Amino acid sequence: MKKNNITFQSCEANYNESQVVIFSAPLDCTTSFRPGTRFAGNAIRVDSAGVEWYSCYQDKSLKDYKTCDLGEIYLPVGDAIKSLDLIYKTVKTILNDNKFPIMIGGEHLASYGSIKAVYEKYPLLRVIHFDAHTDLREKFLGMKFSHATFLRHVHNDFLGDDKIFSFGIRSGDKEEFEWAKTHIFMNKFNLDHLDEVIEKVKDYPVYVTIDLDVLDPSIFPGTGTPEAGGITFKEFLDGILKFVSLNNIVGFDMMELSPSYDPSGVSTAVACKTLRELILIAHNK
Amino acid sequence: MKKNNITFQSCEANYNESQVVIFSAPLDCTTSFRPGTRFAGNAIRVDSAGVEWYSCYQDKSLKDYKTCDLGEIYLPVGDAIKSLDLIYKTVKTILNDNKFPIMIGGEHLASYGSIKAVYEKYPLLRVIHFDAHTDLREKFLGMKFSHATFLRHVHNDFLGDDKIFSFGIRSGDKEEFEWAKTHIFMNKFNLDHLDEVIEKVKDYPVYVTIDLDVLDPSIFPGTGTPEAGGITFKEFLDGILKFVSLNNIVGFDMMELSPSYDPSGVSTAVACKTLRELILIAHNK
Amino acid sequence: MKKNNITFQSCEANYNESQVVIFSAPLDCTTSFRPGTRFAGNAIRVDSAGVEWYSCYQDKSLKDYKTCDLGEIYLPVGDAIKSLDLIYKTVKTILNDNKFPIMIGGEHLASYGSIKAVYEKYPLLRVIHFDAHTDLREKFLGMKFSHATFLRHVHNDFLGDDKIFSFGIRSGDKEEFEWAKTHIFMNKFNLDHLDEVIEKVKDYPVYVTIDLDVLDPSIFPGTGTPEAGGITFKEFLDGILKFVSLNNIVGFDMMELSPSYDPSGVSTAVACKTLRELILIAHNK
Amino acid sequence: MKKNNITFQSCEANYNESQVVIFSAPLDCTTSFRPGTRFAGNAIRVDSAGVEWYSCYQDKSLKDYKTCDLGEIYLPVGDAIKSLDLIYKTVKTILNDNKFPIMIGGEHLASYGSIKAVYEKYPLLRVIHFDAHTDLREKFLGMKFSHATFLRHVHNDFLGDDKIFSFGIRSGDKEEFEWAKTHIFMNKFNLDHLDEVIEKVKDYPVYVTIDLDVLDPSIFPGTGTPEAGGITFKEFLDGILKFVSLNNIVGFDMMELSPSYDPSGVSTAVACKTLRELILIAHNK
Amino acid sequence: MKKNNITFQSCEANYNESQVVIFSAPLDCTTSFRPGTRFAGNAIRVDSAGVEWYSCYQDKSLKDYKTCDLGEIYLPVGDAIKSLDLIYKTVKTILNDNKFPIMIGGEHLASYGSIKAVYEKYPLLRVIHFDAHTDLREKFLGMKFSHATFLRHVHNDFLGDDKIFSFGIRSGDKEEFEWAKTHIFMNKFNLDHLDEVIEKVKDYPVYVTIDLDVLDPSIFPGTGTPEAGGITFKEFLDGILKFVSLNNIVGFDMMELSPSYDPSGVSTAVACKTLRELILIAHNK
Amino acid sequence: MKKNNITFQSCEANYNESQVVIFSAPLDCTTSFRPGTRFAGNAIRVDSAGVEWYSCYQDKSLKDYKTCDLGEIYLPVGDAIKSLDLIYKTVKTILNDNKFPIMIGGEHLASYGSIKAVYEKYPLLRVIHFDAHTDLREKFLGMKFSHATFLRHVHNDFLGDDKIFSFGIRSGDKEEFEWAKTHIFMNKFNLDHLDEVIEKVKDYPVYVTIDLDVLDPSIFPGTGTPEAGGITFKEFLDGILKFVSLNNIVGFDMMELSPSYDPSGVSTAVACKTLRELILIAHNK
Repeated sequence: MKKNNITFQSCEANYNESQVVIFSAPLDCTTSFRPGTRFAGNAIRVDSAGVEWYSCYQDKSLKDYKTCDLGEIYLPVGDAIKSLDLIYKTVKTILNDNKFPIMIGGEHLASYGSIKAVYEKYPLLRVIHFDAHTDLREKFLGMKFSHATFLRHVHNDFLGDDKIFSFGIRSGDKEEFEWAKTHIFMNKFNLDHLDEVIEKVKDYPVYVTIDLDVLDPSIFPGTGTPEAGGITFKEFLDGILKFVSLNNIVGFDMMELSPSYDPSGVSTAVACKTLRELILIAHNK
Repeated sequence: MKKNNITFQSCEANYNESQVVIFSAPLDCTTSFRPGTRFAGNAIRVDSAGVEWYSCYQDKSLKDYKTCDLGEIYLPVGDAIKSLDLIYKTVKTILNDNKFPIMIGGEHLASYGSIKAVYEKYPLLRVIHFDAHTDLREKFLGMKFSHATFLRHVHNDFLGDDKIFSFGIRSGDKEEFEWAKTHIFMNKFNLDHLDEVIEKVKDYPVYVTIDLDVLDPSIFPGTGTPEAGGITFKEFLDGILKFVSLNNIVGFDMMELSPSYDPSGVSTAVACKTLRELILIAHNK
Repeated sequence: MKKNNITFQSCEANYNESQVVIFSAPLDCTTSFRPGTRFAGNAIRVDSAGVEWYSCYQDKSLKDYKTCDLGEIYLPVGDAIKSLDLIYKTVKTILNDNKFPIMIGGEHLASYGSIKAVYEKYPLLRVIHFDAHTDLREKFLGMKFSHATFLRHVHNDFLGDDKIFSFGIRSGDKEEFEWAKTHIFMNKFNLDHLDEVIEKVKDYPVYVTIDLDVLDPSIFPGTGTPEAGGITFKEFLDGILKFVSLNNIVGFDMMELSPSYDPSGVSTAVACKTLRELILIAHNK
Repeated sequence: MKKNNITFQSCEANYNESQVVIFSAPLDCTTSFRPGTRFAGNAIRVDSAGVEWYSCYQDKSLKDYKTCDLGEIYLPVGDAIKSLDLIYKTVKTILNDNKFPIMIGGEHLASYGSIKAVYEKYPLLRVIHFDAHTDLREKFLGMKFSHATFLRHVHNDFLGDDKIFSFGIRSGDKEEFEWAKTHIFMNKFNLDHLDEVIEKVKDYPVYVTIDLDVLDPSIFPGTGTPEAGGITFKEFLDGILKFVSLNNIVGFDMMELSPSYDPSGVSTAVACKTLRELILIAHNK
Repeated sequence: MKKNNITFQSCEANYNESQVVIFSAPLDCTTSFRPGTRFAGNAIRVDSAGVEWYSCYQDKSLKDYKTCDLGEIYLPVGDAIKSLDLIYKTVKTILNDNKFPIMIGGEHLASYGSIKAVYEKYPLLRVIHFDAHTDLREKFLGMKFSHATFLRHVHNDFLGDDKIFSFGIRSGDKEEFEWAKTHIFMNKFNLDHLDEVIEKVKDYPVYVTIDLDVLDPSIFPGTGTPEAGGITFKEFLDGILKFVSLNNIVGFDMMELSPSYDPSGVSTAVACKTLRELILIAHNK
Repeated sequence: MKKNNITFQSCEANYNESQVVIFSAPLDCTTSFRPGTRFAGNAIRVDSAGVEWYSCYQDKSLKDYKTCDLGEIYLPVGDAIKSLDLIYKTVKTILNDNKFPIMIGGEHLASYGSIKAVYEKYPLLRVIHFDAHTDLREKFLGMKFSHATFLRHVHNDFLGDDKIFSFGIRSGDKEEFEWAKTHIFMNKFNLDHLDEVIEKVKDYPVYVTIDLDVLDPSIFPGTGTPEAGGITFKEFLDGILKFVSLNNIVGFDMMELSPSYDPSGVSTAVACKTLRELILIAHNK
C-alpha cells in the first residue's frame, strides 16, 4: 500500500525522470482587491479528475509523457520578498536540471521570481504576456513589489526595453499606457498581431506568462479583478496553440485563478484544460 | 378548489388531449465527476415561471398548444439498468399513443432507454447528437452502462453504422475519436455542417439528443463536466431552429443540467428557454 | 478626522461643484420573478474599488472631472407610485440645477419617474432603450405600474409614437411585439441599426435607458430574469461608446443589476465598468 | 398516464376528501431588507422529498391522513392589499368547508389576511405568535400594511387587547415594546411561559402564527432579517409539540422562509420538518 | 525535489511505519436525495491546512505519531457491490498488517464493507453507531444495498442481535423504529446512556461508525439529508472523547460529509477537527 | 442635495461632536489560511440597514447618542508593519481627543496597533480577549507580526505578565498553551470565570478585543479559520453585557469577520448586532 498522492491529472512521474515539472506558488498577499489565488494550486489538482488526459486539439495525451508535479512550494504568508526568492530558487533548480518549468499561481507578482530565474539562464529572453491589466506601475500603494507592478520591475531590474509583448490589456492607469508605448509592445483588448510577435521572437528564448484574467469573465469569473471585454476561450485556445510551433519556449506560468469566486467550478475547469495544453506543448520543446 | 400542480410553463393539458408529452428522468448514478442532474426536472418546472410562453424566434406560443407534463418518472436510485428499462417503457407508451416524447435529463445515459424505444418504432432512425463529449467508450470504470458509454451502445446494440451525427464534440479519449471516424459522423467543436446533415437525414425519422454541455460553460456552467470552448447560445439556438424545417423528428431529449452548480440560475433559465423552443418545434411535427 | 464616505470610485465632489450627478433608486417591488435590485446601488459603490478610474477606451479619467454621488434616495418599500414620484422629483431637481443625471436601478419601472422629469424639461425628448424584454404590456398582473409595463406608459402618458428606440429585445408577449410595430422602433436581438438611429435622433435631446439584462447572461447573470441570447460585453461597449459622438444626451440610467444572484461579483464589476464609461461620456455633454 | 403533481411530501389527497388543507402565499413586496420569501412554497414542496413521512416525535405518519396541498395561490405582485384579500378569501373558503388551513409564507404580512378570516369564524380567537421581531409598528416607511406592522393591525382592526401572545421576540423599536406592555402578552427571547399561556387559552379557539426567524439563525439562516440569539431547534420543536395537547387550534401558518439565502438547503429542510409536525398536529384537531 | 503529496495534516508517514492508516472511500451512488459525499476525502485533505496538529482536548499532537494517509481508493462509479468489495479488501489488508483503519466516507453504505472486514477478524465485534437516521430498512427503492439499509444488513448478514448501539437517531420509517426495539440498542435524539453502553461493551472489540449528520445541521449543513434537532458539537466531542478510555476500539469511520452543500467550509472544518481527534484516540489503542 | 454617506446604522455624527468613534482597519495580509477580512467594514456598514437602532437588551437606542463612523482607514496592502503604524496613529488621535475608539477588523493583528496606542495613554491597561485561538506564537511562518502572534507581542513589547485575560480558547500549539500558564490568564472553551476577571480588573483601564471566531461557527461561519466548539450567541451576548457594569473600559475592537465565506449574511448580521451593543456600552463610559 502506498501513501496518498494528489497530482494534476496524470502527472505522477518522479522528478528525475520528468522533462516537464509543474509546481504551484500560493503567493497571495499584495492583491489590493479580492484575495484567494493561494487556493488555485490544490483546486486545480483536485478538479483535474474532470479533465481528459487526451487533447483532441493537439492529438496528444498526458499519459504518453513523464511530468512531475512538485505540489505547492512553501511560502511565508505575508512576506512577498522572501516568497519571490523561494520561487526564484525553485525555478532555478528546475532549469539547472534541464527541465521545463510550469508555475501555477498565485498572484501575478510570483512571475517576477520565475522570470528572473529564467532570464539568468537565458539572457536573450523575450516575454509574452497575456493579461487584462497592464501591471506596469512603478509603485502601488507605496510598495515596489505588487501584483500591479511586477512587469515594470521585470523590465527595470533586468529585462529592459523591447523584450516584453503584452496582449489582451484593457485596464490600467493612464501613465502605464503611456510608459508602455516606448518600452514594451502592447496589443490592447485581444490577441491580434500574435502571429507577428511570434515571428519576431522565434529565434529567442521565450517565456510565456498568462494571467488568466485575459479571458472574459463570462468564462473565467474566478479571479480577483474581473475585467469585462476579454477574449473568448476559443480565441485564447487559438493563441495558446500557436505556441506549438514556437520552438524556443523555455517556461510557462498560469496565474490568478481564485477558485472561491466561482462556485460553479468552471474557472478551475478552464485552468485545468489550459494547463493540460501547456504541458503537452512543453513536452514538444 | 383543486390540488396543486407544478408543471413546465403552460404545459397543463391532460395526457389524452396532448400531442406532445414531456417528462423528466432523474437518472444520476454513473456520473464519474460531479453528480446532480437528478434535480434538473423540478428546477426547470419551478423556474419556468420566469420564461415567456411566447417565442419571438418562432412567433408561436405554448398557450396555443396542448402539452402534457408527466413530471418525474420514478427511478430506483443506484440501479442504472432498471432505470433504463423504466425510461424505455415510458417512451414506448408515449409513442404507442402516437404522441411526441420529450425527455428532460438526468444524465445522458438515460437517452439509451429513450432512443431504444424510438428505434423499435422507427427502425430507420437517425440520431442527431449535440454534446461536448464523445460518450463513445466501450466501457467506463469497468461498466457497460455509463454516461461516458451510452452512444457507443446505442450504436452497438441496435442502431449500427452511419446513423449517428455528433456535433460540438471537444473532449474524449483518443480511442473514441478514432472509432468515431469509421462508425459515425462527428463534427468537432461546433455545429458546422448541420445543414448538410439535415439534408442527408431529412427523409428518415430523426431523434435529437442534446447534452446541454455542448454549450460553452460561460452560458451553461450548471453541468457535471463543464468543457470550455463550446458553442454560444446564439449558435445553439440557430442550430435548434433548423429543426423547424426537419419534418421527421420523432423525439427530443435535453440532458445534463445540474442546477446546483449554477447559483445564478442562468443554466436553468437556458434549459427552460430551450425546452420552450423544443416543445414548439415538436408541435409542428 | 472626517466621517465616512463611500461613493462610486472617485465621485467625491460636492453637489454644487459637479456637472454630473449620480444616485441610486432601490425600487424593487413589482418584480414578478426574482427580486433583489434594491441592493445594486451600494454593491456598485463598494465594489467600485476594483475599477480603474482611467478608461483606456475613452482615454479619460474620472479623476479629472467633478462628479457627485448622492447615494441612495429614500423610497417607501412596497409603494411603487410614491417611489416613482420621489425619483421624478430627484431628477427634476438635478435638471433644474443644470446638471446631468445618472440613475442606478433598482427595477426598470424607476425609469418611468426619471424619464418623465427629463421629458418635462425636454419635450422633444427621444429615448434609446437597451433591454432583453419589451416592457410594453398595458397591465401586468392587474397593475399599471410594473417592471413589465413601464415603457408602454412612458409612451402612453407623455412621449407618444416614434420617440422610443428599443434594442436587444428577445422576450415578451406576442401582443407587445405587435404593438411595437406601429408605435416604436424595435431592433430585436442586438444593436444593429444603432448608427442609423443615432443619426436620426442626433438633433433631439436623448435619454438612454439601459436594462443591463440586454447583455447575455454569460457575462451578466446577476439580474432578475436572465434571458440567454443577449449581446456580448464587446458589442455592448461598442454601442455605449457610440454615444460619445451623440451631443444631445441629457440623461442616463443603468437598471436591473441584482447582485446577489451572481456570487462571483462579475455582474457588479460589469455595472461598475459601464457606469465609469457613462459618467465619462456625460462629462462630455 | 397522469400529469405531473408536485406536492408537499404525501399531501396528495383531493380537496374534498381532506381534513387539512395547505397552501402557499408568495407575498413578498413590503419586505424592507432582504426579499425572497416568494420562493418558499415551491422550495418546500420540491425538497420535501428529503423528509420522512413518519414523525418519530409524534409516532404518526403523513401517509395515514388525507391532506390536500392546493399549491401557490395567485397574488398580484406589488399589490399588498389585493393580495391580503385573496389570502383572506382562500382561508375563508377552507374554513367554510370545515377544513383546517395551514398557510406557508411568504412574508409575515400575509398572516393578516389569514387571521382575519379565522377571526370572522371564531370571534373569541386567541393568537399565539412565534417571532424574532415585534411586528407592532403603527406604520412602517409610511405604510399601514407591512411585514413590520401586521400584528398591530390584527390587534387594532379586529382582535383587540389581551388576545395575542408573542414569544421569542428580540428585536423592535422602543415604542413597540412599550405598546406591547399594555396590549398583548410578550415573552422576550424564548418560549418560557408557553405552558402557562396554553393553559390560559385552552378553552378558546387558537391560531398559531410562526415566523421561522424565531429560530436562531444558526439553524435558520434562510430568512430576510436574521436575528442572532433565537431559540434552538429543540426548544422550537418542544414548543410546537405542546400544541398536540391544545385541542382548540383552528389554523397554522409558517412564514418567512427565504430559501435563496441558505445555499445549504438546511433552512428549507427545517421548514419541511416543521410543516410535517404541524400537519400531523392539525389532523388531531 | 520530491513530487507532490497532499495528505491530511501531518499524516505523511509511510504505510509500513504507521500504526494508524486512514483512507477515503468515495462511494456515492445509492444516495436518494442529495449526492456529493464523493468529494469529502480530498476536501478534508486540502482544508486540513486550517487545523492545528495539536489537540488541546487530548493534549496530544499528530506530529508525535506515525500515521499513513492512503488517499482515495479507486471505486467503480455506479457499482455499489464491487465498491463494497474493494472497501472490504482495503480494510482487511490494513487489519492483517495489524494497523488501525480509519475510513472517511463517502456514503454510509461504505461502512458495510469496512465492518464486514473488521467482523471477520473480530467475531465478537460490537458496533457503536452515531447517526440522525436509522439506516435499518430491509430494502430501499427496491435495492438491498443502500445508504438507508446498510445497518440492517450488517445485522442480518453477520453481526446479529444486541451487537449494535445507535445514538442520536431522529429520522426513519415506523417499521425501522419497531424493528430496532428487539434487535439493537437505540438511543434516540442524543448521546444519553453512552457511558452505560461503553461500560457494557468495554470487554469486546468495538467499531465506531459515525455519520456526521448526527450533528445538528446548524454546525454541519454539508451533508445529503440534513435533519434538524441533532446534537451540538460540544455534545459530539464529549461523546468522542469518551472513547479515549475504551481500550478495545478496532476501527473508526466518519461518513457523509458532502462538502459542496456548505460553501462556508465549516462542515469540512468540523470533519477535519473530528478526524484529528479520532486519529489521536486510535494511536492510544 | 448632499453627497452620499454610508455609515453604520445611525452613526452619522461628525467627529467633533461624537464621544464614540468607530472605524474599520482592513488589514488582511498575514492570514495563513483563508483571507477576506478586508471586506468586513463595508459589509457591516451596508448590512446595518437590517439592524434596529434600539437594543431591547440594554433598553437604549443608537439614535440617542452621537457616534462618528470614520469609515475605512487607508492601509498599504501587503505591508503589515506600516499598516500597524497607521492603525496606532488613528487610535492615538481618537484617544488624544478624549473619545472612545471602536475598531472593526480586519485580521486580529490589527489589534496590536490599537492596543499599543491605548497602552501608551493607560499604562495600567488590562486586556480582555475573546478568541478561539491562542494567538501566542513567538513567530509564525518566520514572521514576528502575524495574526497568530499578535497577543504574544502585545505581551512582550509592552504589556507584560498578568495583564491579559483570554476566554474561549480552543485551538493553538502546545507551546502556546504552556507559555500561557505562566504569563496570562486563560479560560479555555468558554466564558466561565468572566465575572471573577471583571471583579479583578474593575479598577484598571480595560481594553476588550473580540475575535468573533470565539463564537461557534454554527452562528458565525464567516471567518478565516472556523473552529467548532465555540460559545453560542447567547453566551457571547451575556458576556458582552457584563461590560455594561465595567466602568473603566477604554476601547473595543471586533475582529475577523470575513463576510464572503457566509453567503447567508448571518455572520455579518451577528457582527452588526454585536457592534450596536458595543457602541451603546461605550456611550456609558
